[in-house]
Amino acid sequence: MHKCNEPYHEPSSTPACPSLAVSSDTNRVQLAHGGGGKLMHELIQDELRPLYQNQEHCDRDSAHLPQIPSDGRLVMSTDSFVVDPLFFPGGDIGKLAVCGTCNDLAMSGALPLAMSLSLIISEGFLFRDLRTILHSFKTTLEEAGAELITGDTKVIPLERQDQLYINTSGVGLVSSSCQLNPSQIQPGDAIIINGDLGRHSVCLLGARSATSDVLNLQSDCSLLQDQVQGLLNAGIEIHCLRDLTRGGFFTALIELAEASGLEAQVFERRIPVCEPVETYCELMGYRAGFLANEGRFVCIAPEREVTKILNVLGPEAVHVGNVGSHSTGVVKLEKDFGTQEVLRREYGELLPRIC
Amino acid sequence: MHKCNEPYHEPSSTPACPSLAVSSDTNRVQLAHGGGGKLMHELIQDELRPLYQNQEHCDRDSAHLPQIPSDGRLVMSTDSFVVDPLFFPGGDIGKLAVCGTCNDLAMSGALPLAMSLSLIISEGFLFRDLRTILHSFKTTLEEAGAELITGDTKVIPLERQDQLYINTSGVGLVSSSCQLNPSQIQPGDAIIINGDLGRHSVCLLGARSATSDVLNLQSDCSLLQDQVQGLLNAGIEIHCLRDLTRGGFFTALIELAEASGLEAQVFERRIPVCEPVETYCELMGYRAGFLANEGRFVCIAPEREVTKILNVLGPEAVHVGNVGSHSTGVVKLEKDFGTQEVLRREYGELLPRIC
Repeated sequence: MHKCNEPYHEPSSTPACPSLAVSSDTNRVQLAHGGGGKLMHELIQDELRPLYQNQEHCDRDSAHLPQIPSDGRLVMSTDSFVVDPLFFPGGDIGKLAVCGTCNDLAMSGALPLAMSLSLIISEGFLFRDLRTILHSFKTTLEEAGAELITGDTKVIPLERQDQLYINTSGVGLVSSSCQLNPSQIQPGDAIIINGDLGRHSVCLLGARSATSDVLNLQSDCSLLQDQVQGLLNAGIEIHCLRDLTRGGFFTALIELAEASGLEAQVFERRIPVCEPVETYCELMGYRAGFLANEGRFVCIAPEREVTKILNVLGPEAVHVGNVGSHSTGVVKLEKDFGTQEVLRREYGELLPRIC
Repeated sequence: MHKCNEPYHEPSSTPACPSLAVSSDTNRVQLAHGGGGKLMHELIQDELRPLYQNQEHCDRDSAHLPQIPSDGRLVMSTDSFVVDPLFFPGGDIGKLAVCGTCNDLAMSGALPLAMSLSLIISEGFLFRDLRTILHSFKTTLEEAGAELITGDTKVIPLERQDQLYINTSGVGLVSSSCQLNPSQIQPGDAIIINGDLGRHSVCLLGARSATSDVLNLQSDCSLLQDQVQGLLNAGIEIHCLRDLTRGGFFTALIELAEASGLEAQVFERRIPVCEPVETYCELMGYRAGFLANEGRFVCIAPEREVTKILNVLGPEAVHVGNVGSHSTGVVKLEKDFGTQEVLRREYGELLPRIC
């Protein structure tokens, strides 16, 4: 008999212990997949081994890096990816994890050789989604010409079952003679960006609010190494490259101005922004220059190289400004009506979890 | 007037929006610290820059690896650390993050040269704890003789404000002539472990259940490179090394037996387990041989080298078994009363989040 003093609970389809529900669902990752036992062995053999060119590397905790030519140097970079949502128009966290690290290497003039892949997976994550993401990772890594050589996998209990964090660390090869850094920047240098700004951020925001269809926008997430190698192979003198990720073009330029001690001058009307991004920014009060991109970079080079650079980077590249001779270490934005703004870092986060 | 139809809520000291509470608390990490703006710049400059020997590396997305001698090769390893709790007797996640990756390199015979540090920090994380952890990271890295050369920081919203995940990737230098891997294992080889098993796991369990005081146990978390270099520098022939982390000694040995195709025979009574770990295992039904360690490794080497190896590794090292000549690829555990057990991988996780 149902007693009145006791609260009555409807039988729920959710078991009292979420772990039990997960552990009986073979479509989902279980905590046990990270425990070092049989299930972890299966996860590694079934899902991760196919990612390795040299499959022996899959079973080892470390791997030899390739031998390098005597005129080459190795460069290392690392990035953790916590993007939300994991899938977005134009990519997913698997593609992003390769592009992000390879692009960091590319900004040193390096081509990626070897990569590590470390996964932190929430308990209950769908194997179907994991496989899609690992497939993206693999195809993008092949496109980059790099090899996965070592990895690690952890499974953690989280409130949300759809969380995945990826760390990739990459080692790339660069010619010993290649010197790309802020100290190379000279007064008079041209400031060029390789395309319009803000697509990745607005695309992510659209995917979060399910307005992707309205925006009809793809992330710019892509590998930059071919564009960079195109510049270097053409014998063009380049002083500095920087990808325009968190903080966007404006923050990257602020950092370069501070590091070089020189003044950068950029013309607002020259900064390319596509129509959906512009509209979105107007509606939401964002500035495209501060939005994160995942396939855009700034190239700082002597003025005489501008035509050649624009030829290599293609029709979307724009010469947006120049480095001045004043040692102010600031960025001046020349506005459309003749006014001038000294750019400052945004205080905090504009858009969390876009990378 | 308080109307009876409406449930009455006590005013709570917790604001409706947790983010607001966090953003007004300067003792805690905010989402904005990961956003690419001014706060992120401050976090990097104030907390992370001091970790770099070459502070210029702190501002770059990638860094050159050191030049290596012509008879050397580079080895790479990666590990993500999600240990819970972050602080435990004998260490914390900062120390663990260095030891874990350096020990993976050490198992190849390598000494660590360069390391990356990638942080995923929960919104609301206490700066005080972050500083303690980064201090441990730095002192352990100095002890290892390695240099932090690149890093990344993300801040994510989580239910718990005390979460921190760390990825370290390491590059180490090994002599070209050093060949340590399962294919080197020979019939007759001795199996030696460098100390008693299970301390790290039981220590973590104790810290979770607040029984640390009763257990009076410290984690074995430590750098293994000095012991390994001691073996190599003494000219001792070593066939294979493996650290005994997730899955413990038994899983490591199962993997080595499978990889070499040979049979391993281990004597249960020789396996060293300290009294608190033994008691804990008896109470909880764990087997120390499957528990994760963070400062233990197995060394497989010709029988004739045993005395020299034990001399180098010290009084805690034990010769626990040998490799047989059968090509079964299994591990046989000789029990105290003359029976024999073929060891199998545990099904799932014994202890999640111990590394």
